Amino acid sequence: MSTNTIISEKELFIKMVISNWDLQVGRMNSLIAKLSDEELSTPTAPGRNTGVYLLGHLAAVSDGMFAFLGIGEKLNPKMEELFVRNPEGSGMEKPSVAELKDYWNEVNALLSEKMSQIAPEEWFNRHTAVSEEDFAKEPHRNKLNIVINRTNHLSYHLGQLVYLVKK
Amino acid sequence: MSTNTIISEKELFIKMVISNWDLQVGRMNSLIAKLSDEELSTPTAPGRNTGVYLLGHLAAVSDGMFAFLGIGEKLNPKMEELFVRNPEGSGMEKPSVAELKDYWNEVNALLSEKMSQIAPEEWFNRHTAVSEEDFAKEPHRNKLNIVINRTNHLSYHLGQLVYLVKK
Repeated sequence: MSTNTIISEKELFIKMVISNWDLQVGRMNSLIAKLSDEELSTPTAPGRNTGVYLLGHLAAVSDGMFAFLGIGEKLNPKMEELFVRNPEGSGMEKPSVAELKDYWNEVNALLSEKMSQIAPEEWFNRHTAVSEEDFAKEPHRNKLNIVINRTNHLSYHLGQLVYLVKK
Repeated sequence: MSTNTIISEKELFIKMVISNWDLQVGRMNSLIAKLSDEELSTPTAPGRNTGVYLLGHLAAVSDGMFAFLGIGEKLNPKMEELFVRNPEGSGMEKPSVAELKDYWNEVNALLSEKMSQIAPEEWFNRHTAVSEEDFAKEPHRNKLNIVINRTNHLSYHLGQLVYLVKK
């Protein structure tokens, strides 16, 4: 953003929300870069999810954002089955760490690109999981709110993933 | 908010941010209610912070928000020393679990009250840790952004605190 550009209040608020999303995605990327595949495959705490499962979970949740925001379909719908609808110990065959890292990167790159194309006005429309009736009563349940919510979801799991970094 | 009230764009943004803060504080309160003092005093993972330390840390960080938002001073400045500036193993004498729970509740109740009194326009002014010069270039570094940032910080540690809940 140029210092000379006058932006609207809406645009400023969108920038605040998206820049916080980008910040957490950046933290996740730094953390992934710091961990070996072996470390990432370790439980974050005894009896808890591994880093790999949480990576798949976060990527699948990001992949679900396209539909919520009305900007497309999932890149890989089977990931939701593996990493959102079922727990780590489901016994279902899972992709390799390398595949999951690629999936995470692809989803987030496309999400960033598509989010940047959403018109300011559109961000304040209801997201697809809220009925028109509910939205009339609760206008804060808009598309931008999905990003705020998902940013907190990412932060929550980042707090767990950081336990994979040896002290 | 009444369904018949027409609110401004600014008020809507503020509501989105504060309602997400309230949501995470509510999750923290539910989690605290679920844990015994003994469970809360356990490390969240081997060699990591205990629940009690994280409770003190979160309360002290909330207490720091008054100054950032320009709505007052810390209720208890020594808590920052114990739970932000120094790690758990500092050897410094710490308050009891009951005292920390009270501190957490007092800080958040006062914060909610004071935040509700901030005028919509004021939320988009710079927070006290940004210079006027930087703020002119980066207008998203406003007071509301502090709340977005602190909400993510709370989510991050909630992800760790949830490991205290026995499976």
